[in-house]
Order: sequence, then structure tokens, then C-alpha cells
Amino acid sequence: MPDPTAPTPDDLIGPLSTEERARLGSGRDFWSTEAIGNIPSIALSDGPHGLRYQDPERGGDALGIGPSIPATCFPPAVGLGQSWDPELTFRVGAAIGREARAAGVHIVLGPGINIKRDPRCGRNFEYYSEDPRLTAALATGWVRGLQQQGVGASLKHFAANNTEHERMTSSSDIDPRPLREIYLHAFGHVVREAAPWTVMCSYNKINGVYAAQNHWLLTEILRTEWGFEGVVVSDWGAVDDRVAAVAAGLDLAMPGADEAGDRGVVTAVADGSLDPSVLEASARRVAALAVRATGSADPGTTWNADEHHALARAAAARCAVLLKNDNDVLPLAPRGRIAVIGEFATEPRYQGGGSSHVDATRVDIALDEIRAHAGSATVTHARGFDTGSGSAAGELRAEAVETAARADIAVLFLGLAATQESEGFDREDIELPADQVELLHAVRAVQSRVAVVLAHGGVLRLAPIVAAADAILDAALLGQAAGGAIADLLFGITAPSGRLTETVPVRLADVPAYDNFPGEQGHVRYGEGIFIGYRWYDRRELEVSFPFGHGLSYTTFDYADPRAVADPEGVSVTVRVTNSGSRTGREVVQVYTGLEQSSVLRPPRELGGFTTVELEPGAAQEVTVRIPRHEFARWHEPAGRWVVEGGEYTAYIGGSSRDLPVHTTVRIDGDVVRVPLTRESPFSEVMANPVAGPELGAKLQPLIGDQGSSAGAELGVDMARMIGSIPIGRIALQLGGLMTAAELDDLLSRANS
Amino acid sequence: MPDPTAPTPDDLIGPLSTEERARLGSGRDFWSTEAIGNIPSIALSDGPHGLRYQDPERGGDALGIGPSIPATCFPPAVGLGQSWDPELTFRVGAAIGREARAAGVHIVLGPGINIKRDPRCGRNFEYYSEDPRLTAALATGWVRGLQQQGVGASLKHFAANNTEHERMTSSSDIDPRPLREIYLHAFGHVVREAAPWTVMCSYNKINGVYAAQNHWLLTEILRTEWGFEGVVVSDWGAVDDRVAAVAAGLDLAMPGADEAGDRGVVTAVADGSLDPSVLEASARRVAALAVRATGSADPGTTWNADEHHALARAAAARCAVLLKNDNDVLPLAPRGRIAVIGEFATEPRYQGGGSSHVDATRVDIALDEIRAHAGSATVTHARGFDTGSGSAAGELRAEAVETAARADIAVLFLGLAATQESEGFDREDIELPADQVELLHAVRAVQSRVAVVLAHGGVLRLAPIVAAADAILDAALLGQAAGGAIADLLFGITAPSGRLTETVPVRLADVPAYDNFPGEQGHVRYGEGIFIGYRWYDRRELEVSFPFGHGLSYTTFDYADPRAVADPEGVSVTVRVTNSGSRTGREVVQVYTGLEQSSVLRPPRELGGFTTVELEPGAAQEVTVRIPRHEFARWHEPAGRWVVEGGEYTAYIGGSSRDLPVHTTVRIDGDVVRVPLTRESPFSEVMANPVAGPELGAKLQPLIGDQGSSAGAELGVDMARMIGSIPIGRIALQLGGLMTAAELDDLLSRANS
Repeated sequence: MPDPTAPTPDDLIGPLSTEERARLGSGRDFWSTEAIGNIPSIALSDGPHGLRYQDPERGGDALGIGPSIPATCFPPAVGLGQSWDPELTFRVGAAIGREARAAGVHIVLGPGINIKRDPRCGRNFEYYSEDPRLTAALATGWVRGLQQQGVGASLKHFAANNTEHERMTSSSDIDPRPLREIYLHAFGHVVREAAPWTVMCSYNKINGVYAAQNHWLLTEILRTEWGFEGVVVSDWGAVDDRVAAVAAGLDLAMPGADEAGDRGVVTAVADGSLDPSVLEASARRVAALAVRATGSADPGTTWNADEHHALARAAAARCAVLLKNDNDVLPLAPRGRIAVIGEFATEPRYQGGGSSHVDATRVDIALDEIRAHAGSATVTHARGFDTGSGSAAGELRAEAVETAARADIAVLFLGLAATQESEGFDREDIELPADQVELLHAVRAVQSRVAVVLAHGGVLRLAPIVAAADAILDAALLGQAAGGAIADLLFGITAPSGRLTETVPVRLADVPAYDNFPGEQGHVRYGEGIFIGYRWYDRRELEVSFPFGHGLSYTTFDYADPRAVADPEGVSVTVRVTNSGSRTGREVVQVYTGLEQSSVLRPPRELGGFTTVELEPGAAQEVTVRIPRHEFARWHEPAGRWVVEGGEYTAYIGGSSRDLPVHTTVRIDGDVVRVPLTRESPFSEVMANPVAGPELGAKLQPLIGDQGSSAGAELGVDMARMIGSIPIGRIALQLGGLMTAAELDDLLSRANS
Repeated sequence: MPDPTAPTPDDLIGPLSTEERARLGSGRDFWSTEAIGNIPSIALSDGPHGLRYQDPERGGDALGIGPSIPATCFPPAVGLGQSWDPELTFRVGAAIGREARAAGVHIVLGPGINIKRDPRCGRNFEYYSEDPRLTAALATGWVRGLQQQGVGASLKHFAANNTEHERMTSSSDIDPRPLREIYLHAFGHVVREAAPWTVMCSYNKINGVYAAQNHWLLTEILRTEWGFEGVVVSDWGAVDDRVAAVAAGLDLAMPGADEAGDRGVVTAVADGSLDPSVLEASARRVAALAVRATGSADPGTTWNADEHHALARAAAARCAVLLKNDNDVLPLAPRGRIAVIGEFATEPRYQGGGSSHVDATRVDIALDEIRAHAGSATVTHARGFDTGSGSAAGELRAEAVETAARADIAVLFLGLAATQESEGFDREDIELPADQVELLHAVRAVQSRVAVVLAHGGVLRLAPIVAAADAILDAALLGQAAGGAIADLLFGITAPSGRLTETVPVRLADVPAYDNFPGEQGHVRYGEGIFIGYRWYDRRELEVSFPFGHGLSYTTFDYADPRAVADPEGVSVTVRVTNSGSRTGREVVQVYTGLEQSSVLRPPRELGGFTTVELEPGAAQEVTVRIPRHEFARWHEPAGRWVVEGGEYTAYIGGSSRDLPVHTTVRIDGDVVRVPLTRESPFSEVMANPVAGPELGAKLQPLIGDQGSSAGAELGVDMARMIGSIPIGRIALQLGGLMTAAELDDLLSRANS
């Protein structure tokens, strides 16, 4: 509730000098803003999946890499996204908000919503998905949850920061449609739907211009088109030219204090190269943020570590994806002999490395949690491999094989070690370590029932795992309660319901960006355009190991009776879902849309929307997925706007992007794009015009009339097809010499009126 | 031999007014240039595979589509290229030169050397290959042959004109490396090696700027870098803005007369917006061309139609590719019963539609030629299908099947009709007509020996043909003597030795440009970069139906004893080739090079060079392929030059891009690229510098010294890897605040000295 007596941002900014306004635009230190006049300082902290806050009273440091205070480590985005559950991301966001308030943190630097363009990107574990609509829905929930607690979000990294390689200098070179439809889409959605207090611009350049200095991005798109009213903060160290950044719309250059930059801004205002009103507006936004953030801060906030751990566990259980479960080897029975194998069973990998790294309040150990659920079962364990030294591999493997041989089932915990993927560098392949794959195959040779649990931040090639495991539970990175959640799922205490947010390709050579990742010579060409993720695999008709949206349960679901109804604001797709198995389960109902006859390139199917339904065995429910009309629009660069193409769309409905048992169609009226005829208009278009066509035909007649019919034969071509795309100006003025330029312009003007 | 008393271009241009100089820059009419003062008019004519000359005395027309004089129709580039024989292209070029001289034509508008980026491009039949080096070698021969006759070539379409869709307005958007290494490479080579009298600029835009108005292309690249001294002529109707075109380096806007454009040029000179010296230089080039062309013209030249037809036949026989020959069904025996089936056996398809369409002097009919070679064999014929009406398909097919059933072998002539591919539009698929495929399968059902002869301008999907034919002879388009040449090959009178110049993919969805062809909204993004043709299929490890360079003979060849030796000017690769079969044959020996550890993206293998060797059965020969050093260079955009990367290169040697039985390695010293350290240089690079590294380390020590070792652990990352790519300026001045900008600049300056 705003305090009506509180000073307005204008009150606060009015008295400030140019120097002070400039100082407000860079930090006070690594993690806080300047306090100037009556404008308070506010604290920012890393942490999309938990707080990484370096309490200054416990000793911060100039590089921001010192120890941080304990916090709950929730599932990183790679895991959290697999819930396909915006309500869950809301709850996680709110919990992080409570921890932030308690720590005196005003802004949490998240969520990260960059699109996972390539599985090799080192920071993919901080992002949700290869799909912009799924990303948008999840991030909207997270931001709303966080900000409901009076703590501001920082939507990042804006924009097109899809590789770690040379991330601070590389230019992401992207054409208008992929930039708008894929890479900016989720940002626009979250800005409009959740109004994050801040947006963090990324390190990279976009089409040659640093994001931090990109007026088109930070002002034209973000503020003018999307109506963003908050503060644009730089990623730490992202500003190369402070004056250019301020002019572009950047408000807060972090970390601070950027004294040289502050002086540069003052000089630029003095010499007229920077409009003082731009600086003033920027300072006003920073002041408004500081007032808002401190106004809603409550240092008396407390939170309960047990409750947050329980939430982390429930969240993690919702996020793991059951990729495969042949012969129903899962869930585990609480009897017999269970061999638990693998280093990660006792030394869990549950988060990624870098600025998001949380000092967890506690960490569940999968082996312990399995033992706690095991009932009368005997649980044995062997380390199997050592990601640290790699030494004694043979001995560890032999021991593991022996352990597996003596059990009724082997559960292997495989994955990537923290050193193999991280913020700051990209992977060069998508392989599991060879010794782990060899271990799996050695175990398989002695044990007919094998389940694998995977821990990893980036997509792995799974073909060798699929070949040797009956069941695969993809635990990605699930936060500090991963161990408990995995045990809950293995024993069926919780039903698996997570879904892949990324395609698992058969091999690295199949991935869309294979030929231009991570870029070279300072540029990354997004050559695959809009065809990223499943859009690529579907368009190219490529086999995949597991498709986007895939995930099994311990039960099954049937789909029936699909209907779609269009209205001026969008389309409602309804379907009847039945739990056809014998256990309760949660289904993620996915609706993909396609338009076969399209005037622009499109993938066969795109995620339009989704919802979830939890059903008892035998129960059925009608569910409706609403797709707003604007989600059908495509960016029309020549017209400079979004355009919905009219036509008969198909809505495909099911449980994954490649398991779509029912579909229906719906007619959508298109937006009208009126393009006036010009000298550049194609001949065929002018001939089709009721005014220009006949007049032009009459002019052409004397030239090609008698021989016209034979002209095509002379050239062996279909003349109409051959010349149809020639601009009318070239035909009329040059090739044919049919009329003067004035006559042509007059003709076109009459045709347009 | 230049006449020393003849006026120089300066003599001719000197007296001309600005108006006259401007008029010299556009044509007199559709096919000739202006005669002004003592500068004669010259005649230009279509025709890379034969003359398409509209003799003005027999009545031309304003659109250039009237009847043309008879000329020999040699194999179009799609066929001619399959010879892999620059000596043959020389002879064909020379023959066309003789016909041009006799007709009074001074410039022949060819060769077309655009890279075949996508099989759907409607004009691919006018181009040689998907590979720039092969294209360059073939075109160099053709230009030299033509110009040896005193007739000028027009190297076209300069540049990046790789689709017919919206070809007069579309922008080919290409990054520096593919533009230089793939799309400009052959142009540069031919300009340097064969000095064509003219270069024809293309219709399209390149990165947003019309080729005709592209100063970078027409002046910086073509003249300054490559040393081109001839005339740049526009493709017919390609000039949108004449003044911009003249300023860019265009000399001759065709067709003429462009009076409005001429006036515009005069006005631009008058108002100072066009440098008069640019117009003068352009007019001087046109004058020099006119003098040179008329000086070497000889209207008394005659040519012998029989001799040229014989050359056309020999050329065609060298160009067909024997794709498959199971069970040695070919060559045909001149006895027994041969069923010849298909419309194309009697109505040959031998050239493409559009501006290159030749009025052939005569046309060989395959069926007649087969009968002439058939000895004691009975040759029957059935039409099988009708590409015109498609009517009576069932009846035609039944008759064909019956004919096939009564023979010892069926030879089917299948292909695309002229209406299905042409200049002016692109194909939408790469399929043979379904009725022809059905016919083949119906024949197969009754006949165990089936050979297929294919006629087509663009690549076809051949999987359904491969499945049903024992032998496939790919005749592409082979010119007016195709019928005779095919008969020669079928009966083994000539040994097949042609090789594919394009990959035949398994399916359209595999082609590199599948996701951005033919473009939309006015742009074609060359998103696959340098990975076009076999470079793509090899890099993506995709199966193909037939690989680039593939072609069988009626004999076999063995490779042994490969060696490669580097010297400062290049690499010589030597191998011993043995004819291991029982017939004389000609082998195209191909050398591909690769560099496994490369700092830039590369395909696994690229054609480095090739040569041919003809061997009797059992004979062996050492052959050497020379690869100039500059062919190992890659375009280094930041340095703005070509750079040879040092390293251990592998030379793979064999008979196709995927049949490379032997290989050897060769060490090549790299070019030195010294990049001075700047504030943008990555941290790791600065730390590696012997001067800057230690000083910087000392500055960092107090900041991260004690906690440095634990910092990585705190973030769960490898710190060195995480921060290695951060620009030193950001670390030193912002993130770390290690020093002032002046101190940093001083440090870098000392490190650079």
C-alpha cells in the first residue's frame, strides 16, 4: 500500500545535480546501489533458485565471489521448468522472496529466461526451456511469487544470451522473426503479465550492438512496445560505454562504483551529446525503484528452513522426468535387494556452478532417503566411479558390478560432475563420461533390472543409456532436496509427472545450431532461424531420443473428444482426459498448433498452451487450454508489426510434442495487411489489381501481342511464371519501356486509391 | 594483336560530353550498346551453352523474347560440369566463340557460376556445382576458350543469386565467411585466372544492397581486391537506381536505352552528388571494351555445324554420370531384345528454359541412336507416359509394361519436363513425377534387368529409382547431341566418366537450406553458412543417395602410395592410380583436404583439387594434384584478410567425396595474425602475455589471494575457465577496479611493444 505522504520520485530527483543523477546510475559497491539525498540504497543478490547473498556485514568482496549466507537451494530452472507448473514456480518464487526479505535483499537477480538454443550452452541449467511460451508461463509464475513478497525480480539476460563462449563480446546475429518470435517472446510476455521491477540486460551484442547500449532493445522494444516502467540493470560488468548505455535506456550499471563512467555521463550532458532529460528519466526510475523496494522491505521477516526444505522436496518431486520405464521396473518395491550404485547417490549433484551457486541449508542424500523408504528391502551401495580422480576406476567398477549382481534391481546414479558444466564456458559435447556408460553396461551384463537416475544441467546424449536401462529417471538438477524427491519417486510415494523442456537428440550432429555454435570471430549466427528445439526436429523430420514435452507416469492417460472454438480474443481447445491406468497421476496436457498452408515458414507444430490435470484411476475430466489470439501472430518485418495469418489451424493435443493422439481444426480470421502497390511490386500483383491490371495489359499487347503466345515457347518457359515476380517498375520503365515514370506512378496511385 | 595506331580509350572519351558519357552507360537497344563519337556499338547475346542471338536484321523485339538464330546447343552447365574437365569446357567455350564471331556477336552472356545452394533453385541447370573450386576450374576453361576466339565472356550472376523466387528484389543475407569462401570464391578465381571481358551483376541484393548498386562488391572486391579491369554489365533490368549503380562501379545498364537514367546521371554530376571522375572511368571502360571487341571481331568467321555437333556429342558423352550399375546390366549388348521406354527417348529434354534457351541446329533422338548402335538386337519402344497431357496414363503404362516384359532388358528414359523447371521460378520439391516412378515399378515387376536414363536440370530424389533400377545413367541436360551420347554410353562405345557436381540427398528435408529457402519477406538468410553441399552432409554425418563427385565407369580403379609435399606456394599430392578392371576408363582423381584441430568451423573435408587420368586395363599411373596455398586460406573477418591456419592437414584421395580409399598428411605453416591486446582482449589472453600477465597477477593477488583458492569452490566452478573470456577492460576497470584506465592502457601498450 503506497504511503501518500512519501516523497515521489520527482521530489527525490528534483534537487539532485547532474553529478548526483549520474552517480545514481552506477552501484555503490558490488551488491548495492548508491544512497543519494533522500534516495535510499537497495541491496541486490544473485539467485534464481535460492539466495546467493554475500552479507556485507559478514564480509563481502570486490569480485563478488566470497562466501554467501545459507539459503534454501530450490531446483534450478533446468529442473523447475520440468514441472510445467506455473503455480509451483509461483510458490518457489515466493519462498525465495521470503528469504530475501529476511536477509534485507530488495532485488533477486532472476529469473533467467533465455531460450536454450543449443544443449552445449554452459548456462542452460539456469534457463527453463527451448520453447518461448513454456518459458514465459513458468517465469511469469516465479516473478509474481517473488514480487508478491515485496521483493523485486530481475528478468534476465535480456536478450539473446545463448552461449557462454566469449559471452562479454560476442554478437548474437539474429533475423527479425527468430529474434521476435523465439528470443524476445518470453521477455515480452513476462514484462506485460508480471511487471518485473527490473530487467537485466545481457553481456552480448545483438546484431552488433551491445545489449547494454542497444536503444532499440532497451527503449523501443522494452519500454515503448512492451510498456516496461521499471529499471534496466546491467549484468555485472556488461557496460562497455556508459554514455551509450544511458542513452540507450540503461538505468543502473553494475557493479559500482563506476566513477569514470559517472564522470563521462556528466561530461556528455555538458557537451550536449547526452540529452539531460534521458539522464533525468533514468535517475527517476532508479529513485522510484529504491523507494518502492525499501517501502516494501521488512527486515523482521522470518522463514522456516524446514518448511522451505519441504517445499524444495515437493517441487523437486514434481520436476523429475520419468523418461522410460520398461517392464514396470519402477516404482521400486520396499522388499528384496536393491543395489544403489554411483557417486551421485552419496555426493549429490543438485545445482550448477557460477553466480547462481547457493550455500544450501541442508542437502538430502539419495542413498539415505532410499534406505528410509526401503521397508524390508536390503539396500546395498557401491560408488562405481569417481568423478574427481577417475582413479581406481576398474576396482570401483568391479565392486559395483558385484554389488549389482547380488541384488534384485540396480539403481545407478549417473551424471555430469560440477566441473563438467558451468556458467562461463560451454560444453564441447553432450556425452556422459565414458566410464559411467561403461559401468552401466557392465552392470547390465549381470543384472536384468536396471534403473538409471540422471543428474545434469545440460542435455545429454541418451542413446547409450536407453540401450542398457529399463527405466530412466531424469533428475536434471533438483536442488538440495533432490535426494529425498528421487527416493519419493523411485518408490512411487509421489507419481512422476515432470516433462522434458528440451528435446533429447539422437546425436549432437542433429542439433539445430550444430553449424554455428558457439560462434567464431566475435559472431554467432542464428542461422536456423525460428527452427530451434522441437521446431527443428519436427520440421527436419529427425528422429529424437526423447521429444520435447515427454514424460511418463506410473499410470496412463487417454484423450478423446477434442474441440476448438475461436473468438476474437483467442482460441479455446477442450479435450476429455481419462486416467486409463491403475494409479493416480498428473498429466500435462499439451496443445500444439499448426497451419499447413502458410505464407511464411513455420514449424509443423508449435506449443500453443498447456494445462495439468490430476486424476484418480479411471477418472476423467474435460480440460480447456486457452490460447490468446496474439500467440498465433507472426512478426511481419516489412509491415513492422505482428500479423495473424488467417486460415484453418490444426490443434494437436496430447502428452508430448510427438505423442498427440487427437487433433481438431479451427478457422481463424487473419489480420489485414494492406501493402500499397509501388514500383517494386511484382508484376503479377499489379496485373491482379482491378485498376492497374487491364491498363497494363493494354500497354503490353502491342509489344508481345502477336508473338506473345510463342514467346514462352521460344524460351521454353511459362512466361507468366517467369516474369511474375519482376518489379513493375523494371518491366514498365526498362525492360518493356511501356510508359514514363510519371505515367507509372499515376497508374499505381489510381490503383491504390 | 592491338593496333598501335588505334585510338586509345582516352582519345575516345576525352571529347565526350557528360551527356554522352552517361549515354554510353546504358544500351542502345535490347542487345547492343550505344555508338557514340568514334566508339562503336557492340552486340551482346545470351548463351552459356550455345548462342541465343536475336539477329536484329531478322527482327528483334523490345522484350528480348523473339526467335533466335540457329546455334549448336552444347550441354548446359549442369551437364557440362559433370565432365570435371576444364579442357572440355575450354573447347566448348571456343566453339561458342566461333559461332558468336560468325554471328557478329561480341559478348556472350556467360558462364553462369553461381553456387548451387539448394536443389530447388530453378536456374541451377545454368550453374556448375555446389563446390566453388570445381566451379572455378570449369568456368576458367570456358572463359579462356571463348575469349581465345576474340569474343568476350560475361561472368555471371555476380553475386549470390541462388534462388529465382523474387530474384529481382530479394536480399541474399550472407555472413563474411560463406560470402567469401563459398559464393565469391569462383568469381575471384575466374577474374584472376581468365580475365573475362565483362562481369554481369545479378538482380538480387546482397546484405540489403542491390548487386548493381553495391560499391563494396563492384569496386572494393571486384576491382580493388581482384584487379578486374573489364566492364561490369547489369543483368537485364537489374538496375533500380542508375546513379547509385554508376557510383558503385556499374558500367553498363542493360537493356537500353535508359534515357531517364542517363538524365539522372547527368543531373547527379551537375549537382555534385556523383563524382565526374567515376563516370569518366566507367565510360572509359565501356569504350575500351567496344574497341577491343570490334577489333577482334571477324564477321568472315565460319563454323561447321557437323563438327560442332560432333563436339557436342563427345562433350555430352563425357558428362553423363553412371550412378549405379548392378549386375553389369550396362553396357548393353548389341543383340537380344531391348525395350526402350519413355517419352524422353523420342522427345528429348536436353536444355533448360529461359534466357539461355538455344534454337538448336539439330537434335539427336535417343531411340534412333540406340537403333543405330543395336547391331543384331531388336529394339522396341513404348512411350510409357505423357508429360504434356498426362492423359491415357494407364494405357501408355500398360503398353510399356507389355513391351518391357517381352524384352531382355528395359531402358527407361525418365525425367522432368521443361515446364517443371526453368529460369524464373524455383521448384517446390525434388520429386520425379509420380506417374514415371509408378511406371518404373510396374516395369520392374515384369523385367529383371532395368536401366534408367534421367533427364533433368535440378537434383532429383532418387531413392525410389535406386530401389527399382539396376543401372542409372544420369544424363542431366546434355544439349542437342544428348541422344547420341547416351547411346554411345549405353553400348559402351564411350566409357562413362562423368561425376556428380552436386550431392543427391536422401530426402528434401536433409538439404542444408531447407529452413530458409527460397526466403520470405524480401530476405534469404544463408543460415547454413559455409556448410553447403557435401560440406553439410559430411559435417552433419547424413546419409546421401549419391555423394558429390560420385560416378562409375565400366571398369574400376585402385589407389595406392599417397604422398603430399608442402612448399611455400602450395601442396602437391601424388598418388598411384591403377585400372584394376577389364575396360579402358577415365578416372576423376579427387583430393579433399581437412584440418581436424581448427580454430574456425570447417567441414570435415573440402575439395582441394582434382585431375583426370585415362588408363587401359591393368595400366597404372602416378598423378599429382597441385593445391595452391591460397586454397587453404580462410577469411578472417576481424583481420580483414585471408589467413592460412597452420597445422597437420589430411589429404583424402579417391573417386568421390565419400569414396576416399587413401589419405596422407602434410604440415602447413600458418600465416601470422598478430592481434594487439586491447581493453576488449580476453583476460586469459592478457594473462598469457609475458609482460602483462605477471603485472596483472600481482594486482589481482591482494583481491582474491587468500580467498582465491576457495572462490571457485564457493561458486562451484573453475574460476579460470569462468572468467577467462572476460575482456580485460571490464575486469580491470569495473569488476575488479584494479587500476585506472590510463594505467591499463599503459600496461597494454607495453605488452604490445
